[in-house]
Amino acid sequence: MLFNRLVIAGVGLIGGSLGLAARERGLVREVVGFGRTEANLKVALDRGLVSSYTFDPAEAAHGADLLLLAVPVEATRSTMEKFIPYLPPGCIITDAGSTKEQVVKTLEQILPPTLPCVGAHPIAGTEHAGAAAAFATLFEKRLCILTPTPRTDRTALARVRALWEGVGMRVEEMDMHTHDQVLARVSHLPHMIAFSVMNAVLDTQVAGVDLLPYAGGAFSDLTRVAASPVEMWRDICTSNREALLTTITEFEMALSHMKKAIANGDGEALSNAIERARGERQRLTKLREQ
Amino acid sequence: MLFNRLVIAGVGLIGGSLGLAARERGLVREVVGFGRTEANLKVALDRGLVSSYTFDPAEAAHGADLLLLAVPVEATRSTMEKFIPYLPPGCIITDAGSTKEQVVKTLEQILPPTLPCVGAHPIAGTEHAGAAAAFATLFEKRLCILTPTPRTDRTALARVRALWEGVGMRVEEMDMHTHDQVLARVSHLPHMIAFSVMNAVLDTQVAGVDLLPYAGGAFSDLTRVAASPVEMWRDICTSNREALLTTITEFEMALSHMKKAIANGDGEALSNAIERARGERQRLTKLREQ
Repeated sequence: MLFNRLVIAGVGLIGGSLGLAARERGLVREVVGFGRTEANLKVALDRGLVSSYTFDPAEAAHGADLLLLAVPVEATRSTMEKFIPYLPPGCIITDAGSTKEQVVKTLEQILPPTLPCVGAHPIAGTEHAGAAAAFATLFEKRLCILTPTPRTDRTALARVRALWEGVGMRVEEMDMHTHDQVLARVSHLPHMIAFSVMNAVLDTQVAGVDLLPYAGGAFSDLTRVAASPVEMWRDICTSNREALLTTITEFEMALSHMKKAIANGDGEALSNAIERARGERQRLTKLREQ
Repeated sequence: MLFNRLVIAGVGLIGGSLGLAARERGLVREVVGFGRTEANLKVALDRGLVSSYTFDPAEAAHGADLLLLAVPVEATRSTMEKFIPYLPPGCIITDAGSTKEQVVKTLEQILPPTLPCVGAHPIAGTEHAGAAAAFATLFEKRLCILTPTPRTDRTALARVRALWEGVGMRVEEMDMHTHDQVLARVSHLPHMIAFSVMNAVLDTQVAGVDLLPYAGGAFSDLTRVAASPVEMWRDICTSNREALLTTITEFEMALSHMKKAIANGDGEALSNAIERARGERQRLTKLREQ
């Protein structure tokens, strides 16, 4: 038993899956769900993701020794502020946000020294959302990045690490700024592209033909994550603004390079660009097979 | 038996899979492989994709009643010219090119009236290439687009349709210009994006961190096709130049719209863009489940 009473604020895919996995593996004595929508919390209770739920932060906080914030990242501050007056000293705060610098800075700014805080990003998920989409094996063999700061309590850090390792994750530490730069490229950019491809296609008329029935595997795989939750991704965009803008510009330059080669009918430049991309993608395939 | 002697010029993933599927289903009496690389043709023979192979177009053409051009599209003309002097009158020419207007126009320009020609694009494939990657079920339930012109012989058209239907494809007719516009958006654009994402990541330094080990499902799915064959995609770029340039511009505008919303911290514009993309992607999911 790692924790006695885990409060999960936001019982969605991530929060709900953690509740279920932690309960199944006996990592926590009880899991209290906290959220906005009773329908979702009822699903969570019925599916055993939580052992109880409440809309009252005071009730949820009573006796809690871990609070997981699993809400859209821009809701971190307002959600945290609801709990601060009621959490017992020593209760650890952690989160599951896809961006870290803004979230961790906000938490360190508003939390009293009696409530230690550990930023975490379990890199797992699907394009589906809500308690109905949660499943206990979501985290197995996936990577969780913890983003401690000089202010992070080392005992709290170790206990949060034990929780994510306990549900099957590989855990790694990274500074929060680097985390946001890395994730902008390997996760946030692909989502921006997926949204934009769908919107570009929506705005296009080709001789009155509906394009989607002609979509093959490349299109379908590329756009899969365009079905991701709106609030979550809106908040990632606003909370990782600088890194995302830089990343989009890097990508625009690479695409523009190919576009110029196409415009010039420059077969050699095209071959070089494709060959280079191909080699790097084959490296990714090897990495993923390890 | 639909054809007596099928010659496949280019025994790669598409050519090889057609040979195998047509042989297994008894659609052809014999399949002759023609190509540049003996190692690949030996694999094709060993795997039963072809019943024989040759480097001599005259030998291949002898008694042929169907020639499938399954080469990178810019090699269509030179490959066709090798066979023209030797093909018996009435032999049907078809192809499997991912772009159609340039290919079909070239064929109609250089073929004598005794050699009827039917443009075809079996929309099937993986990121793997060569005879080793071929498999008989590649075409099952997938779409094949035929692009007849006013000059197309109706009997030849019906016979080519029967072949692709015979290996399990749904067959549809479309004019070649529309085909190229549609495919630019649903297939060629996703490939350009995949190549460009890999190249952008290759060109990026984030605090000395190798980004690829942090890639999750979105990145991996989006870039899968970046491992596609270089020559094939170089030729698609040059042979579908105009449609591809327009398509990339449409996409750049949609991405730029999101980028502006990110720069402005405009949550409402971001929500709208994501919501719109999400609805269209959910429509694609439904279409693909049908």
